[in-house]
Amino acid sequence: MEFSSILLEGAVTELARLPGVGRKTALRLALHLLRQDAGAAEALGNAIINLRRGIRYCSVCHNISETEVCPICASELRDRSTVCVVENVKDVMIFENTGQYTGLYHVLGGLISPVDGIGPGNLQIDSLVERVRAGGVDEVILALSATMEGDTTNFYIYRRLRETGVRVTQLARGVSVGNEIEYTDEVTLGRSLLDRVDYK
Amino acid sequence: MEFSSILLEGAVTELARLPGVGRKTALRLALHLLRQDAGAAEALGNAIINLRRGIRYCSVCHNISETEVCPICASELRDRSTVCVVENVKDVMIFENTGQYTGLYHVLGGLISPVDGIGPGNLQIDSLVERVRAGGVDEVILALSATMEGDTTNFYIYRRLRETGVRVTQLARGVSVGNEIEYTDEVTLGRSLLDRVDYK
Repeated sequence: MEFSSILLEGAVTELARLPGVGRKTALRLALHLLRQDAGAAEALGNAIINLRRGIRYCSVCHNISETEVCPICASELRDRSTVCVVENVKDVMIFENTGQYTGLYHVLGGLISPVDGIGPGNLQIDSLVERVRAGGVDEVILALSATMEGDTTNFYIYRRLRETGVRVTQLARGVSVGNEIEYTDEVTLGRSLLDRVDYK
Repeated sequence: MEFSSILLEGAVTELARLPGVGRKTALRLALHLLRQDAGAAEALGNAIINLRRGIRYCSVCHNISETEVCPICASELRDRSTVCVVENVKDVMIFENTGQYTGLYHVLGGLISPVDGIGPGNLQIDSLVERVRAGGVDEVILALSATMEGDTTNFYIYRRLRETGVRVTQLARGVSVGNEIEYTDEVTLGRSLLDRVDYK
């Protein structure tokens, strides 16, 4: 579809670069913005620009941060002896929202996936090993997705950390809370049997 | 979900104001922008701000324009005696893309819909009547959606224009090109029978 306006064309092109947004959706969004108060478009535009300008990555855990070291790494209230390894920034938020974790994080920035051309060198694995070697860390919790890529990455990190002698744990795998046995897949059921724990 | 960063929180809040974008999608978009080059976020933010700042509405037809009078209204090549009445800016683009229309447009900015609190006073109907009264217009084509609101608006405009003596036409209604009779609804079929035209 051709647009009569260069400004509209520009906005649609940029909006259509967002994941899951095609040109039709982008046009709908652009026309929506035109119907709003001028302030709404300014606020959105500035929020996007400021986001990218203002946010950097924590030099310790690689989580997003507005400061050199993120608030979690800088906090005196967190247990500094435990490091939870997660795939990405969103996972940090998810674990924080459980309210169950008081340690620190380490954000890999992805999972090892040869198909997608992502090797260990593309991830923050070297910096994790260095962090453990620097001392003060007693336990590394591998909290990656229970997928092929997650398992591969778990195993690679486990091997890299073995020489440091640090305790390496991973998330329990089993029947999800609220799930019925009937609809749980066999691999998960088999794993939950192997990893069974004392009833308490 | 709580975010550790005020900038991220701001961007997610603003993105989530877009139609069809919830907070989860907004977070996905924001994290996507963080993964891109700095230029990508700047370009998107600026495109949005410039769009709203630079675009105004044509003083004649109320289509979006970067100038006082839009390129269509200003063009010497268009048939100035025919005015096509459409619901919104997007419809202008759709008709322009058919390549079948060489006249001018008049954008109402919506349809009469008492349920949504939209009356004739909220639409560019007075300015249409003035435009016709000013002379030079021989035909007004009502090109609104074939819905209850479209029909209501058609009828209202028709009555307002009756006194001016201008010819008022509306889009043909019938079986859509490519549609099978079997799957065409009865109202449309009935209408297409009533409005049948000589075979040529």
